Amino acid sequence: MLKLSRLLPSISGSSPRLLEPLSFTKPDPRDSAAFSTATNNKYAAKGYTSNRIFAPYSVYKGKAAFSLSPCLPTFTKLDSGAVVVDRRGSMMMIFMHSIGERKYDWENKQRFALSATEVGSLISMGPQDSCEFFHDPSMLSSNAGQVRKSLSIKPHASSNGYFVSLTVVNNLLNTKDYLSVPVTTAEFAVMKTACSFALPHIMGWDRMTHQSGGTVGLQSKVEPPALDLEWDK
Amino acid sequence: MLKLSRLLPSISGSSPRLLEPLSFTKPDPRDSAAFSTATNNKYAAKGYTSNRIFAPYSVYKGKAAFSLSPCLPTFTKLDSGAVVVDRRGSMMMIFMHSIGERKYDWENKQRFALSATEVGSLISMGPQDSCEFFHDPSMLSSNAGQVRKSLSIKPHASSNGYFVSLTVVNNLLNTKDYLSVPVTTAEFAVMKTACSFALPHIMGWDRMTHQSGGTVGLQSKVEPPALDLEWDK
Amino acid sequence: MLKLSRLLPSISGSSPRLLEPLSFTKPDPRDSAAFSTATNNKYAAKGYTSNRIFAPYSVYKGKAAFSLSPCLPTFTKLDSGAVVVDRRGSMMMIFMHSIGERKYDWENKQRFALSATEVGSLISMGPQDSCEFFHDPSMLSSNAGQVRKSLSIKPHASSNGYFVSLTVVNNLLNTKDYLSVPVTTAEFAVMKTACSFALPHIMGWDRMTHQSGGTVGLQSKVEPPALDLEWDK
Amino acid sequence: MLKLSRLLPSISGSSPRLLEPLSFTKPDPRDSAAFSTATNNKYAAKGYTSNRIFAPYSVYKGKAAFSLSPCLPTFTKLDSGAVVVDRRGSMMMIFMHSIGERKYDWENKQRFALSATEVGSLISMGPQDSCEFFHDPSMLSSNAGQVRKSLSIKPHASSNGYFVSLTVVNNLLNTKDYLSVPVTTAEFAVMKTACSFALPHIMGWDRMTHQSGGTVGLQSKVEPPALDLEWDK
Repeated sequence: MLKLSRLLPSISGSSPRLLEPLSFTKPDPRDSAAFSTATNNKYAAKGYTSNRIFAPYSVYKGKAAFSLSPCLPTFTKLDSGAVVVDRRGSMMMIFMHSIGERKYDWENKQRFALSATEVGSLISMGPQDSCEFFHDPSMLSSNAGQVRKSLSIKPHASSNGYFVSLTVVNNLLNTKDYLSVPVTTAEFAVMKTACSFALPHIMGWDRMTHQSGGTVGLQSKVEPPALDLEWDK
Repeated sequence: MLKLSRLLPSISGSSPRLLEPLSFTKPDPRDSAAFSTATNNKYAAKGYTSNRIFAPYSVYKGKAAFSLSPCLPTFTKLDSGAVVVDRRGSMMMIFMHSIGERKYDWENKQRFALSATEVGSLISMGPQDSCEFFHDPSMLSSNAGQVRKSLSIKPHASSNGYFVSLTVVNNLLNTKDYLSVPVTTAEFAVMKTACSFALPHIMGWDRMTHQSGGTVGLQSKVEPPALDLEWDK
Repeated sequence: MLKLSRLLPSISGSSPRLLEPLSFTKPDPRDSAAFSTATNNKYAAKGYTSNRIFAPYSVYKGKAAFSLSPCLPTFTKLDSGAVVVDRRGSMMMIFMHSIGERKYDWENKQRFALSATEVGSLISMGPQDSCEFFHDPSMLSSNAGQVRKSLSIKPHASSNGYFVSLTVVNNLLNTKDYLSVPVTTAEFAVMKTACSFALPHIMGWDRMTHQSGGTVGLQSKVEPPALDLEWDK
Repeated sequence: MLKLSRLLPSISGSSPRLLEPLSFTKPDPRDSAAFSTATNNKYAAKGYTSNRIFAPYSVYKGKAAFSLSPCLPTFTKLDSGAVVVDRRGSMMMIFMHSIGERKYDWENKQRFALSATEVGSLISMGPQDSCEFFHDPSMLSSNAGQVRKSLSIKPHASSNGYFVSLTVVNNLLNTKDYLSVPVTTAEFAVMKTACSFALPHIMGWDRMTHQSGGTVGLQSKVEPPALDLEWDK
């Protein structure tokens, strides 16, 4: 059980503190079925309860909040023995509306998964740059085009920070949702550094390099190395 | 036992040497109860003696010194099996006054723990930028507001380096402490590079990615992947 | 078996989507003998089928495409017990012509292996910089000079991206091949970040540092450390 | 045994090739006693033969060459159980004079070990910046001051690269040695990226973070965490 009694007093100003209210800093445990019986079954059925580690970077502001965490790719082994990426990794952003003082609406959160190239856009942004991404989460189904999501990152007029905003238009439910979170230069620096760190991992490249510690990297010279060569062709 | 006889001659000038006096370069062993019987009991009781690794980056100057080292987050396992951050990581800065030639006042050291976002401020600073952070270490207790700490990083007038200064006002003890350490551009580059390296670790993201080598990252295609999907909702 | 039925609809515009058509995002499985019986034997004979991990970063455009992935160095152990680099690592680029809507010509792909220093050129490019590399894949044989490859990276006139182009002149076959792929700023940011991550790995430096977790890094003070010292000489 | 027959033809021009002559790219095996009986005994006695990994980054030019590789710190365990840095890590540079076409004078090589802060200088250098470091390798002995080494890094007049130069004045032997190696922007980018990667490792911070995978990082909430707290004091 989480110690909910550890709720801390309000934190204000532009210099974030080490300790933030616990109920805010651990959003994902709800996802992992610790809090809500309603979501408990839903997520348990999907396997969320099994040994996942939750350490999102969260930005909580007056009207809305978002958290950011890496989703690793999954791999599959072919009959040949080769291992290939099955599902690509991403940087998952989860947005929530504020519904009171330091309370956020978990029931109606919105997701946006940044691809490797979209992460490339984010980490290469200068202080005056902006970017916008468009997703159709129903792209594969008969509902294609019915739900449109767009994430925009726009610099403050004062140029010391950005607005990170998500718009979700759902023609099936006839709803339109808009969430906007101002982020400081420092918070954006954390996002860029953390995304730069995570990028090779969501691409699966840590798997390709970590195997260097295994059998592939150190091989005797007797057997020919099984590597691509430019001059093999 | 530490070889105290390895004390080296004085080092001056702006180009730091590989070998610094041993008593300076290993401040933290004192913390870990190697030197002082007084602190020995205090720290042993807190578990400091157990297999911790000490490798701070230290900047020793004429009037004061500080060291910098990462403090990793701790995790806790929920009943659901999910692992969440229990206590957040930080970059710990420890300041000491000089009390003689190459001697620093270990008994009265001051701590300041940079949060992830404060580290984001530090690593995004340009040569003309400055920043300041405010902490209340008694925030959770009845003494809230009685102790106020502020850390400021300000560029030299010559713009080749910074002053890193800590002010601690303690109304309970009626004391005010001020420590200021000039850092060169090279020392600040080490701080930025080391903090950029450490940031994902104090955020706990290395745990999220290292599990890619475990059971989650490589899974058969038979069972559905237990990952967040933007289009699940 | 790969689920080819997971082919996704067309993706257009400058903001790449998380999901790309599966047949595009997994080019290398063909290399690893999953698709083609013809190549199957060829690669199996070279050991490609053994537990390699494939996670290239691919850029697919109208006329051509390329993928980028790290090739780790191989090491060999000397009689003395020392382990040295046997074959250097590289960043492998594989280019293919488009031969129809979202179809690329796997049979006639061209390879170009970037050395560590060439990767250094790439990651230090500013938005207006260009670079060009020249390789002779037959350099070691009697056919030296018969095949000339050059890779050029040139900024768009609009300066928001680059053209990555490969020219291969083969005097043996009397052929000349030219493939050019426009990459966006975001795609190039991914390439730079991923190459910066991979560079120490293709240099073999991850092996030198990872051994710090082993027996070399943590040694008792009784035995003299077996490290190079500037003042040993 | 090394395959010396794999010596490759000359390589010229500003764009380095993947394959360089083997005798150049593996300088350190000589250090590890593979080639020379004379040095064999010397190094074997120092433990050089035991499982060290050699993967230096080498820059070979007309008049001189240097190689760069990380030297990890060593640690020692105190009676308290705490592990502290015993000998600091460094980036080792080894310089050699050219003594003929693609031959370098291994017998008279010169070493210069960059400290963490000196690495900080190097990685923060802009294209017009220069820096110089001074070492006294006899600092601890009665010969202090008799040998003076200085390493300077100065930009080319054309500002596309640097001169990396080492001067060694030895009053004991009445010798003065000067070695200068021009490096391209691309080669310097490799040096900066590789040094940035290696810096946390030579500081020993990879040890502090890697333990997060061990017992310290994941602890139950029952026992109080044994971490420094800013508000403990």
